[in-house]
Amino acid sequence: MNVKFVFRIVSLAILITSVFMIAPAAIALIDGEIKNASAYIVTTLLMMIISSAMLIATKNYKSSVYAQEGVAATGLSWLSISLFGALPFFWSGEIPNYIDALFEIISGFTTTGASILSDVESLSRCNLYWRSFSHWLGGMGMLVFILAVIPQTKKGSGSGIYLMRAESPGPSVGKFTPHIRETALILYGIYILLTLLCVIFLIAGGMPVFESLCTAFGTAGTGGFGVKNDSFASYSSYLQNVASVFMFLFGVNFNIYFLIILRQFKAVLKNEELRAYILIAVTAVIAISINISNMYSSIGETIKHAAFQVSSIMTTTGFTSVDFEQWPAFSKAILLFLMFIGASAGSTGGGLKVSRVILLGKNIWRTIGKTLHPRKVYVVRMDGKPVDESICNGVDAYLAVYCAIVLLSFVLISLDGNTIGTNFSAVTACFNNIGPGFELVGATGNYGHYSYFSKIILSLDMLLGRLEIFPLLALVSPGLWSRKR
Amino acid sequence: MNVKFVFRIVSLAILITSVFMIAPAAIALIDGEIKNASAYIVTTLLMMIISSAMLIATKNYKSSVYAQEGVAATGLSWLSISLFGALPFFWSGEIPNYIDALFEIISGFTTTGASILSDVESLSRCNLYWRSFSHWLGGMGMLVFILAVIPQTKKGSGSGIYLMRAESPGPSVGKFTPHIRETALILYGIYILLTLLCVIFLIAGGMPVFESLCTAFGTAGTGGFGVKNDSFASYSSYLQNVASVFMFLFGVNFNIYFLIILRQFKAVLKNEELRAYILIAVTAVIAISINISNMYSSIGETIKHAAFQVSSIMTTTGFTSVDFEQWPAFSKAILLFLMFIGASAGSTGGGLKVSRVILLGKNIWRTIGKTLHPRKVYVVRMDGKPVDESICNGVDAYLAVYCAIVLLSFVLISLDGNTIGTNFSAVTACFNNIGPGFELVGATGNYGHYSYFSKIILSLDMLLGRLEIFPLLALVSPGLWSRKR
Repeated sequence: MNVKFVFRIVSLAILITSVFMIAPAAIALIDGEIKNASAYIVTTLLMMIISSAMLIATKNYKSSVYAQEGVAATGLSWLSISLFGALPFFWSGEIPNYIDALFEIISGFTTTGASILSDVESLSRCNLYWRSFSHWLGGMGMLVFILAVIPQTKKGSGSGIYLMRAESPGPSVGKFTPHIRETALILYGIYILLTLLCVIFLIAGGMPVFESLCTAFGTAGTGGFGVKNDSFASYSSYLQNVASVFMFLFGVNFNIYFLIILRQFKAVLKNEELRAYILIAVTAVIAISINISNMYSSIGETIKHAAFQVSSIMTTTGFTSVDFEQWPAFSKAILLFLMFIGASAGSTGGGLKVSRVILLGKNIWRTIGKTLHPRKVYVVRMDGKPVDESICNGVDAYLAVYCAIVLLSFVLISLDGNTIGTNFSAVTACFNNIGPGFELVGATGNYGHYSYFSKIILSLDMLLGRLEIFPLLALVSPGLWSRKR
Repeated sequence: MNVKFVFRIVSLAILITSVFMIAPAAIALIDGEIKNASAYIVTTLLMMIISSAMLIATKNYKSSVYAQEGVAATGLSWLSISLFGALPFFWSGEIPNYIDALFEIISGFTTTGASILSDVESLSRCNLYWRSFSHWLGGMGMLVFILAVIPQTKKGSGSGIYLMRAESPGPSVGKFTPHIRETALILYGIYILLTLLCVIFLIAGGMPVFESLCTAFGTAGTGGFGVKNDSFASYSSYLQNVASVFMFLFGVNFNIYFLIILRQFKAVLKNEELRAYILIAVTAVIAISINISNMYSSIGETIKHAAFQVSSIMTTTGFTSVDFEQWPAFSKAILLFLMFIGASAGSTGGGLKVSRVILLGKNIWRTIGKTLHPRKVYVVRMDGKPVDESICNGVDAYLAVYCAIVLLSFVLISLDGNTIGTNFSAVTACFNNIGPGFELVGATGNYGHYSYFSKIILSLDMLLGRLEIFPLLALVSPGLWSRKR
């Protein structure tokens, strides 16, 4: 285990996060809030000092790294930036308990959007900005950002791929170019461009600039933190539709955008994940629209709300345009179903990911085939190419851990009481990085009523969901920290 | 595909089931119920005529069979005996709708114990007997029974292992002896012996003979149909404890009893599944006892009810000694968790099975290991022996189908309305062959309020759960019925 390398990455993550804290500090100063400004400035300085010391201590790191270093660096970086990132909320006094502040920032970084706050509108602008910006940073990934901005000078710096693999969602990671830094740059380039587009469309609809920026951060990261207590309910239909479309766009695999840039439209049209993603969304919108058709005044209104909620839940954003708790059980069941599927791999969305669901489905047919014809060889194909056996089995194993964590968390948070529906949807919504669940944690509810114990469990679920389990789970694996390979 | 062989097995299954219907017909005659008696006699004759005709038509069957024939024969046999087995309920007029009757008998054969009846005590004794006996027959398996009683005359009759594999629960099937008929005979021998023991213990506690017999059938098959509206609530503590112990015993892998007969006590003590089964049950009893300690008058009473419910739910029986719907959320969550785990493989219980859960857990560690050290080879061991890679992957794939079916069924039955807790636990309770769920389908509720559409979905879930998915799913697989291999 190359411990120095791991801590070098962790210190870079802390350093960069501290730089991003200058913006909310500036906002607090502009708004004349001395207490808030000092909360951000003190945190920034603390993080800069600690990370600089760590950078000096790990100066002579070796660049020979493998999967385990990538996994450890990712897990520890996310834990560290969460622990530091919660401090401004806490020190500003606007979230007076540290566990609550931690829940809120983990919910931010992991792009979950679950909140312990019942009145978001009472927060200062600096805190609103930091909450929303954490979505944007966590969406594409902190380490991917490091890969994009820090030049890799040392020889054999193939280490990047292990970091990217550990942090990026989905069953496998595609490199756009042979150089990982270029891939990271292209990813962030597309990300920034789409975010800017989103801001422009929101401002065009009459949304104030600060609000547009925060909303775009929440949309781009598929997070769901907004600046209004009723999320999107009081915005105009135009703004709701803009959000529907952009949430959906950020749930698309970014490989698709790269293919579009390369003008490989055939490959785009043939992409199985994109097709399934669209098909699932459209089917869900139609089914829900029929189911709720008598609740709204016009067909347009019905489809608008159905599309907004499907787009929001499937991409695991969590904005709401109506209180879907009032919808019939069938529509709610479809939304719960979408929570598990999630968005595309290689997007900013969470959940199991569409490509994983496709592979799970193909594995099922393979298993049936094997049951009937034990000696026949079955090859799973995706986009026409055979999928490696180890990826197929890895996807199945992923589901096993996934189920185990969902069930265990459900049992533990049930210590607080509440109904099966509340607890089960709370775990589902946190683990899949969605935000709102049903019943007490539904569209108009929040997570404030849970005990600190449950909040810690749910925070861990959010991290496990965002990092796709293994980087965090590996941190507690006894084999990781041993010196021999 | 050897179609003749498949239909020969199906006809044997129908024939034998019809023979078992003579007993309820006799009970009806003794009780002087002409309408009920004729319902059973007509069904018996109908089944005998149809199965005899099928036996004659398939006389010159070929004995060369493979996995696919085993799977097809199992799926079709279970469907056939269910369709016929529902007729007496329907014709007797005591369950006036055929879909309801079908739900009830599928719930019986699959040892689920979910009922659409709100007043069991109003049923005639013949129908009560048939309901309970269906548990006993379905518990160890209809085809295993055929293997035990029908001598295999043709050469190359290794076909038995495929039938047994398709019908017996668990990730793999252990043959006790090289001859499958001997294995089947030993299984049924142990089964009959334990059932008799259960009857004796119940009669010793003052339970009437007919009631003891029905209760023992429900206990042995880990089914849960009883003869009282309040299940076990009004029975004495002695009878409740007898049921707790016997439910638990029938949830043990029958291999263990065979090892005990062979006096291989060391192998018994070292058996990983048995250890885990006991450990999970004891942990659950302790956790629930602490959680509900203030609800009952004494520690003894508390532990008795905790043990009864844990034993009942974990073995997927479904008897109830108290209305656990009144228990705190944590205890209910533990019970829901146990519903998924289920009993041991090779027992009469349902659920995922303890050995599968162990393998899933070991696969998780293997996957973590592989993430950290991609080039290292990891071997999963069970009882000290390496487990074949295909079994490990098969278990993971099984979980994938399992989750897909649970989620899809949940969405479909949500068309009826109801809460997430009711619908989710209904699917869980049916698919894992438990019986009672929570909220509207809880200890004092029943499934009568569901629409016929939902009842059909839940019936299919029960069959899919009992046959462990593949035999039923394979029936609709296009590859199965093709003539070429």
